Amino acid sequence: MAKVAVMGYGTVGSGVYDIIKANADRLSRSANGEKVEMKYILDIRDFDDHPEKELFTKDFNDILNDDEVSVVAEVMGGLHPAYEFTKSLLESGKSVVTSNKELVATYGTELLEIARGKNVNYFFEASVGGGIPIIRPMHQCLTANNILKIAGILNGTTNYILDKMITKGETFEAALKDAQDKGFAERNPAADVEGHDACRKIAILASLASGKMVDYNDIETEGITNITLNDVKYAAAMDSAIKLIGYAQFGEDGKIYSIVSPMIIKNDNPLSSVDGVFNAIMVTGDCVGDVMFYGKGAGKLPTASAVVADIVDAVKHNERSKKIFWEKTEKNVMADKSSKKFSYFIRTSDLAENVMKIFGKCEFVDNIVDNESAFVTQPLTQAEAEEKMSKLTDVVANIRVLD
Amino acid sequence: MAKVAVMGYGTVGSGVYDIIKANADRLSRSANGEKVEMKYILDIRDFDDHPEKELFTKDFNDILNDDEVSVVAEVMGGLHPAYEFTKSLLESGKSVVTSNKELVATYGTELLEIARGKNVNYFFEASVGGGIPIIRPMHQCLTANNILKIAGILNGTTNYILDKMITKGETFEAALKDAQDKGFAERNPAADVEGHDACRKIAILASLASGKMVDYNDIETEGITNITLNDVKYAAAMDSAIKLIGYAQFGEDGKIYSIVSPMIIKNDNPLSSVDGVFNAIMVTGDCVGDVMFYGKGAGKLPTASAVVADIVDAVKHNERSKKIFWEKTEKNVMADKSSKKFSYFIRTSDLAENVMKIFGKCEFVDNIVDNESAFVTQPLTQAEAEEKMSKLTDVVANIRVLD
Repeated sequence: MAKVAVMGYGTVGSGVYDIIKANADRLSRSANGEKVEMKYILDIRDFDDHPEKELFTKDFNDILNDDEVSVVAEVMGGLHPAYEFTKSLLESGKSVVTSNKELVATYGTELLEIARGKNVNYFFEASVGGGIPIIRPMHQCLTANNILKIAGILNGTTNYILDKMITKGETFEAALKDAQDKGFAERNPAADVEGHDACRKIAILASLASGKMVDYNDIETEGITNITLNDVKYAAAMDSAIKLIGYAQFGEDGKIYSIVSPMIIKNDNPLSSVDGVFNAIMVTGDCVGDVMFYGKGAGKLPTASAVVADIVDAVKHNERSKKIFWEKTEKNVMADKSSKKFSYFIRTSDLAENVMKIFGKCEFVDNIVDNESAFVTQPLTQAEAEEKMSKLTDVVANIRVLD
Repeated sequence: MAKVAVMGYGTVGSGVYDIIKANADRLSRSANGEKVEMKYILDIRDFDDHPEKELFTKDFNDILNDDEVSVVAEVMGGLHPAYEFTKSLLESGKSVVTSNKELVATYGTELLEIARGKNVNYFFEASVGGGIPIIRPMHQCLTANNILKIAGILNGTTNYILDKMITKGETFEAALKDAQDKGFAERNPAADVEGHDACRKIAILASLASGKMVDYNDIETEGITNITLNDVKYAAAMDSAIKLIGYAQFGEDGKIYSIVSPMIIKNDNPLSSVDGVFNAIMVTGDCVGDVMFYGKGAGKLPTASAVVADIVDAVKHNERSKKIFWEKTEKNVMADKSSKKFSYFIRTSDLAENVMKIFGKCEFVDNIVDNESAFVTQPLTQAEAEEKMSKLTDVVANIRVLD
């Protein structure tokens, strides 16, 4: 019998409870015959009408001090007190599983190190891509590969908004309002539309792929708030779509280049057809080539099902660390910005003649807006692109093209 | 130090050798510090020019009787002697990993049972989808889900042929010849184009998802040899594509419906845009919804990288069975054909009026070929569809529509 606890009875936490209740037998078979039983639910709110209200506690110490509890799911979100709770639990020899991307991206290095030292596990499958299996497949199934590149649609809210702009011709503002009305976007949508959520997720994936801590503060992050309907139409005219991409590239020198930015993606890339609130992560390995993982990146049961799979794995690996981790390195692991070139899609009111003088060879797109030039540059570093753009009369739009 | 052996030094076997040689350090880290070293390569051919020719043996007993060897990769293909070798190795307490879908689909139940009894592992990640992580993610990451449905593009050769027909307007015969010239299709292409390869793979996935042995002989299998260029054009006119799909559906009564057949897939389904030799498997779980795994389904290094990941996992789980298995049940696990309805796309020289008399409500497609009716029926069982089609003057084409 494995006793588990859940911290946080919100959307994901209640999903975890529901799945464990409904699937006790199958989960027990998956956990090598160990029955998985919920012993505590930690939440500061009252749930007096809950059929198992006796499980609820407001005192974290009930969980921490109960030797019967071997695995705890932290699905409360936020940094504090999630960090302090997780640290105490790991130090006391309990495994912790989480959907909390902010916590993993911020304190993951330290928490994984503690877990390793205590020979327990800190699993975080649900922190990236919701229910999509990505952490474990990358760590285990692609272990024979040097990961060369990751490009992912990691935020369902922004993908929904861009998809509405693409398929329904809605403006950014209208699409955002629609997403808010449907509950896909928060009232304060900054974390999503400004790319911060995707940034934390690509930081986790890049850390996992490289074994070195990638600080999300070091990742240049650009959101989708500047993307206009005309940009989307230009992309369509180029047989492409605009998506918010979390990108990481791993150099032979061990350096990592990473960015979050809207990118133009050719329609022959499977990422371009990822619709609505779906997420997809394309991972390029030196042996396997491109593999993509696709599914719902958020939502109660998808996310909760990933948390429960982590619980089962933690129960199976009780007191046996699976050694999923990364380390903080002395040296800066981030590659110099100038090491990476992208082609840029640029719109300007300058004439093609002037554009060619500045950018040399580039690919022009039939203009959709009168009196402007729209074109795709040769691959340029960010500094090169900025320097050249500064010579244009104006820049109506500039968007990277995914390679 | 974990000593491993490879049986079969063909495309995949030499890839396994290359990857282990090139990545010794990283694999050792993944295998919890155990160094992975190749001790034998079994092949009946001579490799006197090989830089490590001393590893080669023609005598299986060298491997079987060497207590140092704990994990063996069987990548020789075919049923015999792969079956006898694998059985002997498992019985002697060695773990075996394989890319041999035919062996897993035919003798997997027995071999998994032996592995379980001996507390060793029989892993087969590479047997379905080449380098795409699918077996382990389905088994581990989706463990909180009841799997409801699997629909996969499981054969790269047929997908390449259909893709050429779709994108280049080539006939089936021309596309097949092209695939043969490029080395994607065998001189005798029957196993691919008649669907037998996909059938073995969906049998493995259905067995894994249900925990019950699905005999591939019980799966109705239809290839792509009857698909014409006009069928492909009709599909395009319906915003769809024709793909060869391995399909399995899992009923609440524990019964499994499975079929391999060309299917019409709407373009809003990500499976429709899977191009060339790529594979993709869509798995529907009751919690997670649709998740898709995409990548190269064949090829030396992609497949070998999955075999090597299995080797590493077997080294980590030495003398500890991971309990990936399914069982042969007394009762027939296959659902009655009449339990499943598909819509059918049908072409006939009959007039629409007659079609409607027979099929009732159906959705007509503007005809591409003169003097014929093309339409999509309401969902029908196979018996209903056949009965109604028998009343038509002729049936030029009938293709299931993926739900």
